[in-house]
Amino acid sequence: MKTKPLILVTNDDGITAPGIRTLINIMNKIGKVIVVAPDSPQSAMGHAITINSPLHCEKIKGTSGPQIEYSCSGTPADCVKLAVNELLDRKPDICVSGINHGSNSSINVIYSGTMSAAIEAGIQGIPAIGFSLLDFTWNADFNPLKKFILQITNETLKNGIPKDIVLNVNFPKLNEEEIKGIKICRQAKANWNEKFDKRTNPMGREYYWLTGTFIIQDEGEDTDEWALSNGYISVVPTKFDLTEVNSIKQLNRWNL
Amino acid sequence: MKTKPLILVTNDDGITAPGIRTLINIMNKIGKVIVVAPDSPQSAMGHAITINSPLHCEKIKGTSGPQIEYSCSGTPADCVKLAVNELLDRKPDICVSGINHGSNSSINVIYSGTMSAAIEAGIQGIPAIGFSLLDFTWNADFNPLKKFILQITNETLKNGIPKDIVLNVNFPKLNEEEIKGIKICRQAKANWNEKFDKRTNPMGREYYWLTGTFIIQDEGEDTDEWALSNGYISVVPTKFDLTEVNSIKQLNRWNL
Repeated sequence: MKTKPLILVTNDDGITAPGIRTLINIMNKIGKVIVVAPDSPQSAMGHAITINSPLHCEKIKGTSGPQIEYSCSGTPADCVKLAVNELLDRKPDICVSGINHGSNSSINVIYSGTMSAAIEAGIQGIPAIGFSLLDFTWNADFNPLKKFILQITNETLKNGIPKDIVLNVNFPKLNEEEIKGIKICRQAKANWNEKFDKRTNPMGREYYWLTGTFIIQDEGEDTDEWALSNGYISVVPTKFDLTEVNSIKQLNRWNL
Repeated sequence: MKTKPLILVTNDDGITAPGIRTLINIMNKIGKVIVVAPDSPQSAMGHAITINSPLHCEKIKGTSGPQIEYSCSGTPADCVKLAVNELLDRKPDICVSGINHGSNSSINVIYSGTMSAAIEAGIQGIPAIGFSLLDFTWNADFNPLKKFILQITNETLKNGIPKDIVLNVNFPKLNEEEIKGIKICRQAKANWNEKFDKRTNPMGREYYWLTGTFIIQDEGEDTDEWALSNGYISVVPTKFDLTEVNSIKQLNRWNL
């Protein structure tokens, strides 16, 4: 690439989250950075988009660094749509989302706002990566991730991403010297075993609070969960054509 | 099945929408029906779940028919989680979502609240189907769909759904006699070409309204879009393991 790459940065924890601030700093070393991110936390928003209410978007001034930043009232997917179709002069060379405070491995990819932004970019034909750290705390330590994010992003810009996929990258909560390397993986089969904590509000009305336990139903050593619990960074090629082509033959035998 | 099947019904247009009222009436002919649906429209919510605020859920009294109904403040995926883990005594035999007012074919599956409910049920190991009509109006005519929904649901109960998939069923906006039949399809490759309508609110603040044109990038005659525009009902086997296994080899050649 002759000119500096144009990099779109977004996330789901909101534009002030330490995770996106780290990601912006890393991307400033690689190219020209435009940030379009939610003005408030949008975790677990899945691939929600805003169609029944207006969107607000403001250019942010006074942050340090060469990047240009916009704060947007919408979801992560809205941010990517607004960036690509309204705010940017040309298609970005890459879109990076995160660094998420918390895991987006295995089935969590379905609920993830971070990954919905990456997938939205992928649908629009833009190479895209979602980065997540297995530490949901606001003050999570993102320093051990820096050199790997730089490496993965540079490799993606160099090689290009296979057609119609995006990368889902998760980092174990480890020091840099404890990380054993990067593994290309498949999504582990898992689900959440939900419990609803039933409470009564000050006005006497009952309400529920969602809690749950994460259940891995997969013994494979080629999964993201295996990689992460064995000290590796997981990279899952993630697609947005959800067709299970192997089932088409079977369904054709039904009486339909 | 010896006893009547237990059927969970939900949607994303809200519990009062004509689409879900039609679906409830059809399901009452097949089994014991429990409705857990959003108390307000949740279109385009994708697979959002509510983790940072409480959920309210009220049993509804006085609706006609034998079904039991709950109205829930959450997203479609929340409704399924709450139903399965809190409200129902046992796992339902099937979950049906819809009938959506509007298409969920091709890439729309990614944004769909209707399909997120079906996928959530699928993740929990429950056979699930999302039904959608290519007519987004509130007064859409659902009558031509009835016999097909009955047939598809009965076939699903009889055969069982292939493991780890759910069915995405879309209906063309046609009279019953114009519908040519049912086709098992793959998801067409398509995207939305967004435009943002920029306006100024009464307080002088700028805002955007999302609009767009649907672009089909697929010439295949085995896609849902082809089926629907040629008078067929489309059935796409839809999975929630998003791994593109074919790309793993390619990514393993990168310098990671």
